[in-house]
Formats: sequence, structure tokens, C-alpha cells
Amino acid sequence: MTAPETGEIMAMAAGDGIDIEKVRLDTPGCASVAHLNNAGAALPPAPVLDAVTEHLRLEARTGGYEANDLARELTEGFYDAVAGLVGAHRDEIAYVENATRAWDMAFYAVPFAAGDRILTTTSEYASNAIAFHQVAKARGVSVEVLPDDGDGQLSLDALAAELARGRVRLVAINHVPTHNGLVNPAAEVGRLCRETGVLFLLDACQSVGQLAVDVGEIGCDMLSTTGRKFLRGPRGTGFLYVRRDLLRELEPPFLDLHSAVWTAPDRYEIRDDARRFETWERYVAGQIGLGVAAGYAAALGVRAIEERVTGLAARLREELAATPGVTVLDRGARRCGIVTFTVAGRESAEMKGVLRERGINVSVTDHTHQRLDPNAVPAAVRASAHYYNTDEELGLLVSAVRELAPRR
Amino acid sequence: MTAPETGEIMAMAAGDGIDIEKVRLDTPGCASVAHLNNAGAALPPAPVLDAVTEHLRLEARTGGYEANDLARELTEGFYDAVAGLVGAHRDEIAYVENATRAWDMAFYAVPFAAGDRILTTTSEYASNAIAFHQVAKARGVSVEVLPDDGDGQLSLDALAAELARGRVRLVAINHVPTHNGLVNPAAEVGRLCRETGVLFLLDACQSVGQLAVDVGEIGCDMLSTTGRKFLRGPRGTGFLYVRRDLLRELEPPFLDLHSAVWTAPDRYEIRDDARRFETWERYVAGQIGLGVAAGYAAALGVRAIEERVTGLAARLREELAATPGVTVLDRGARRCGIVTFTVAGRESAEMKGVLRERGINVSVTDHTHQRLDPNAVPAAVRASAHYYNTDEELGLLVSAVRELAPRR
Repeated sequence: MTAPETGEIMAMAAGDGIDIEKVRLDTPGCASVAHLNNAGAALPPAPVLDAVTEHLRLEARTGGYEANDLARELTEGFYDAVAGLVGAHRDEIAYVENATRAWDMAFYAVPFAAGDRILTTTSEYASNAIAFHQVAKARGVSVEVLPDDGDGQLSLDALAAELARGRVRLVAINHVPTHNGLVNPAAEVGRLCRETGVLFLLDACQSVGQLAVDVGEIGCDMLSTTGRKFLRGPRGTGFLYVRRDLLRELEPPFLDLHSAVWTAPDRYEIRDDARRFETWERYVAGQIGLGVAAGYAAALGVRAIEERVTGLAARLREELAATPGVTVLDRGARRCGIVTFTVAGRESAEMKGVLRERGINVSVTDHTHQRLDPNAVPAAVRASAHYYNTDEELGLLVSAVRELAPRR
Repeated sequence: MTAPETGEIMAMAAGDGIDIEKVRLDTPGCASVAHLNNAGAALPPAPVLDAVTEHLRLEARTGGYEANDLARELTEGFYDAVAGLVGAHRDEIAYVENATRAWDMAFYAVPFAAGDRILTTTSEYASNAIAFHQVAKARGVSVEVLPDDGDGQLSLDALAAELARGRVRLVAINHVPTHNGLVNPAAEVGRLCRETGVLFLLDACQSVGQLAVDVGEIGCDMLSTTGRKFLRGPRGTGFLYVRRDLLRELEPPFLDLHSAVWTAPDRYEIRDDARRFETWERYVAGQIGLGVAAGYAAALGVRAIEERVTGLAARLREELAATPGVTVLDRGARRCGIVTFTVAGRESAEMKGVLRERGINVSVTDHTHQRLDPNAVPAAVRASAHYYNTDEELGLLVSAVRELAPRR
């Protein structure tokens, strides 16, 4: 097979609902880098950066608490914007410092008893896996890894069979793994969990902002995500969704004077809404920025974003697969904006460094973060596209890889 | 007694080690407000604001992870700056999202057993008190409130007696309460705890940055604080100190891929240093800003800061006490930069609003946050001075209070 020329497949890129020129003009970083590390942290649009820095300057000019009083509309607007983006009610949203803390506040709140079972996937995020085992040790819970289906996604048949065996307290999986390009069948998992009355915690750190994610359609009980990745919000921000009916059953692992009201010297009452998972003190400018980021994504339309992101990634995957010396590692029947590959004779870390020198940002996967996945390779280059990326930028990456790949 | 004219006592303000004109020029907010809400959140100096916004812009220009690679010196410098400020080693410092989370990570890590006792003070922060009772309920621990001494501070005699009775697992107190101007005798508490081998957790949220705080001199095992108050750092930042010898005994309540290494599918190893209490994902710009703030304070000198802050507050207290209709509520043999008072016939919330309109920032205390303190009033005006405040600013406050206070 002859590899197609760079640009040939790229030329297939057709117009979609997003005005790419406008979103690039809105994105300061687009002028300086070909940013294909959106699964690490995306480039924020100017409205997000401006909202954050303006609030920081307001704090410096007038005082932190005084600025907060002035910005009440923006901080409250955050809950509407985020809830609207994922199909939740504003009372079901907690502002949390990052996806890990969001996930922690939900996971460590589950009232596990000895003998309970946690079901997860081969591709679960390392931090979550470590937390599973901390709780397993402390409370006598078992952690069981569901096998993949033929395409590499969580096997729904295996999930159904394990749910039928009973004693499952929690199904905790990621929506999009960090390292292999696939999308787990979250809505099907949600359906099985609802049928059996089992709690479902979805780590949506890599999916919110690149895919259309709706908590009602998915049927998850809890969903955690970050601001900094595909949502294009600030670092140090994230949010947690908890289904309203479940809120009172989950006692947050930490409490403060915001999550609970001190009613008597030795008594307190925990809030009824999802803010029971928050801390009073916070990065207020970040909260405002994350609200702006959620509004920005909603204005573009999550379905248009998904179409654009998955389209770009599919084209990139195809170009790379057609490049001699390149092995594309992505799995899954359904794929996302993450593209992983290795280049024969080149270390992935070296590739990252050389690409960085050429103004192309990618990252490198690490199999020590994927100890449940028998298919994880020691290291791979990870290129993750966002809607503001262009076919020209993908072409830059493909050209560089071709140059660096071994010649016959 | 005739009240002295405003400015009479103020004129006693003599030069000290801090170049007040320079620090005010360094502080954008000094041009627009008389900020006496430093116990809420202080005005950051320009170097802190600039460090934060510059890093945010770098992230927007080059990518979040890529910016982090470029800023390694600053993020690592954070640990040196903070450790240097409080007399710790850099390995004993964790960067945490705020003082509450810093305190939580230490408190919830203590391996309590049923029957253990926690000793605290009448002035303990509401969030901490709520956390005590959450753990008391969950683990059968008792929470005991030590009485005050004649000056209103924690009674050292009572502490010694309770320690002698045994079963005390933790002494957890604040260094400076939020609402009554006093400084608790932390170093004497530290000495008693060391003598009896009892853990000592010091909430230094209101003291670091206004007082000279040295973990060795105090002898605390754990110390939590925030960036935003007297340290003049960003909102959404804080740090935790944990004494090196104790680190391995405290298993963090949450773990992630930064606090622990995933060594095998069902095993992990927790870090040896204080970063076991951190989360990998963070507000990096805030970390850099907090490091700059710590360096800024250290450059001015913590003893010079303490002298200036306590001097200003003492003068303010004296002026207010001499004002008819004003009751100064502060207690304690040793006092800090926090001054609390009520004005006859005026609601404190009304006072705050009127002062705000005149460009004077103060806050209001809330007795529902002080349920252990029999001396707490329903509400008081809280004026908290920082070294950048001037006698003229204190004079503005005193003049306004005189105008609003009832006339004979």
C-alpha cells in the first residue's frame, strides 16, 4: 500500500457547525503552538483567560471577599452553566478543585461494608485504582476488573454476569481512558446498573468537553470531571455531579462550615444539595472561568464539538496508520479525540521532545499508570485533538512523524 | 475620660523595619480601598498577582502541561519559600487547595480508635469543630473543649491536667481565632504535647503571615494554613506542614497517582514526604503565587511584620476603646492584628455596609460559627490590619465609627 500524501486525507475535512477561524482567533495559543495535548490540558479561549485574570485583578484591587460579593452573579452562574452542559440540575453540581478531588468526594463517600464488591475496567485511571485498593484494605471490599470485549471496551456481557452474582456496591469506570483512544459504553453500563440498583460512578475527566455527555442519557449516579482538559477551563478546577435522589445517602468524607451547618456544640446538619461535597474556601476566579468555559462549549454545541473532534482524530489515525514505521494503538468500536501510536526505533519521550521543538505539543503514555490493562505498551505518543485544531496542524504532526520514522 | 483626637495616638506610629511607602506602591489595592479585612483575604502585592497571571497567560499561550515544564523552578521554589518561612524542611511541606483542605488532610489521617480523646479550645474554627464531631460519631472518639484561662486564651493548666488523665490522641487548636483578637499560647501547648507524646495539630490559618511562626519553636506536629489571608497569596491555595518523623504514621485520607505509586495491580506505595498529602492536579499558577507571597513575607521579615501588625492593631484598639458607644471585644494576654468591636445601636452588618461605601473594608463575625465560645457575641465588626495599612487608614475607620456611634 502506498501511503497517501499528507493533505490528501486532510482535504476530506469539510465544514461543520463550528466557525474554526473564529474559535482560533479566540484562542491565544493557536498563534504559537500546534496543540495536540488536549487530553493533558487544552488551550483556554480568551473569554476564559480574561474572566479568570479579571477576577484576580478585581480581588487585588478591592479585596478577595469584597470581589466575591461583586461577582455573585458569575459564581452562581457557574452552577447553571455546568449543569446545563451535562443535563443536570444546578443543585446536583459541586465545584471541586480538580477531577481527582471530585471523584474522591464521591468515591470515599460510598458507605462500603465488608464483602462489598467494586467493579471496574482494565483501563481505569491509576489514581482511582489506588483509591480502590486503599478502601479495599481499610474496609474489606473486593476490587474486580471486568474483562474487555473484542473491541477493547468494557465487556457489557461480563458486567451483566457480575452484577447478577450480587454484592456489587459500585461500578466505577472511566468514560474515556487516557491512553487508548476508545470510548466506554457508559449509557449501556448505566442501564445495567439501574436495572440492578447498583451505584454507578463515571470518571468523565477525558470526555466532558469533547463528547456530548448527558447524565440523564448515561444514567450515572455520580460523574466527576476536570476543567482543564477538553472543557478548556482553568487548571485547578473541576466539578462533581451527584444525582439528586442520592445526595442524602452520601456523607462527604470531609465536612466544613459550608458543606454542613453547625447547629449545636456537638451537632451539625449536612446540606441537602451537591454543595455538601464542596469546601467553602475556593479558587473563585477559577470557578468563574470554569463557568465561562462550560458556557463557551454549550454555545458551540456539544454535538458539533464531538463531531469535529472525532472527525479530526479519525483522519489523524488514518494518516498515521498509513505511515511506514508507525503503529497506531487505539482500540474500541467507538473512538474519541485521543490518538496513540509508537514509531519504530524511536522512544516516545524522544518523539515528544522533537515535536515540542517544532511547536507541536503531544504527550507520552506510561504503562505504570495502566497496570490493569494487558494491552498497554511501555510508552506511546499521545496526540489529542480539539475542535480548534486544523487539518494543517495534523499535517504538521504527520509530516514530522514521517521524517522521524525509519526509512526503508 | 476625654477621647483623644483621631491622629493623636496614631501619631505614635514610628518607623520600623518595613518601608511602608514601598509596600503600598507594590499593592494595587492600596490606591482604592482602606483594606482592614486582612483576616478575610489580604490584598496581594503586585509580584504575587503578576506571577499568577503571567503563568496563566503562559498556560494559554503554550499549553498547561508545557507551561508547567517551563515553570519547574518556580513550582519547586514554592517548597523552599514556604518551608523557609515557617522553619520547616521542604520535604515537610504539601501544597494544598486551602487551609480547610490542608487541615482535613492532616486531621482525617490521624488513626483514631474508639475511646480516644480530642482536646480543643473554645475558639476553635467551626469547620474543624464539625469535622471533630463527624469523626467522633464515626469512630467513637470524644471531643473535649478546654476552658479558657483568665485572659480568654486556652488554659494551659487545664490542658496539662487533661493530658495527665490519658487517652488523648490529638490536641487540635487554632493559633489565632477568627473572632476575638487573641493569640493562643501555641509554643506552651507544643511543649506539653511533646512531654506527653500527644499529637499536636495547629490551625495557623490566621497567624502565618502576620506573626512570626516557626514550627520548631512551636513544636507542633502538623500545621495548616491558607495563602489568601495574612500571607497575601492567591485564593484557592494553602499548605500543610507535617513533621518528618510523623509522615509515615499518617495515611492520607485520599490517595492518587502522585501521593502514591501504583506498584502492582493490587498494591501501591505511599510517598515518604509530605507530598503524600497533595493531589497531582493543582492550580499551578496559585502554587507559584503562594511561593512568591512566602518569599515576599520572608524578605520583609516575619518579626518586623508582626511588630508592625500588632502595633497598628493595638493603636486601633485603643482609639476604638476611647470612642463613646464602642465596645472592644478582644481578649487575650497576647493580641494580634484582629480587632473586634460593636457599636451601640448599630447592627454590625449595617456598619460593614456603611464602611464599605466609604471605601473601608471590614467583616462581621458570626456567633453561629463560635458555638463553643460562651463569650462570643451574635455579631461584631472585625477590622484586621496588615503591615501595609497606615495610621491614616485606621483614622478613617475610627472617624467613621465616631460618626456612626450614638451621640450623647
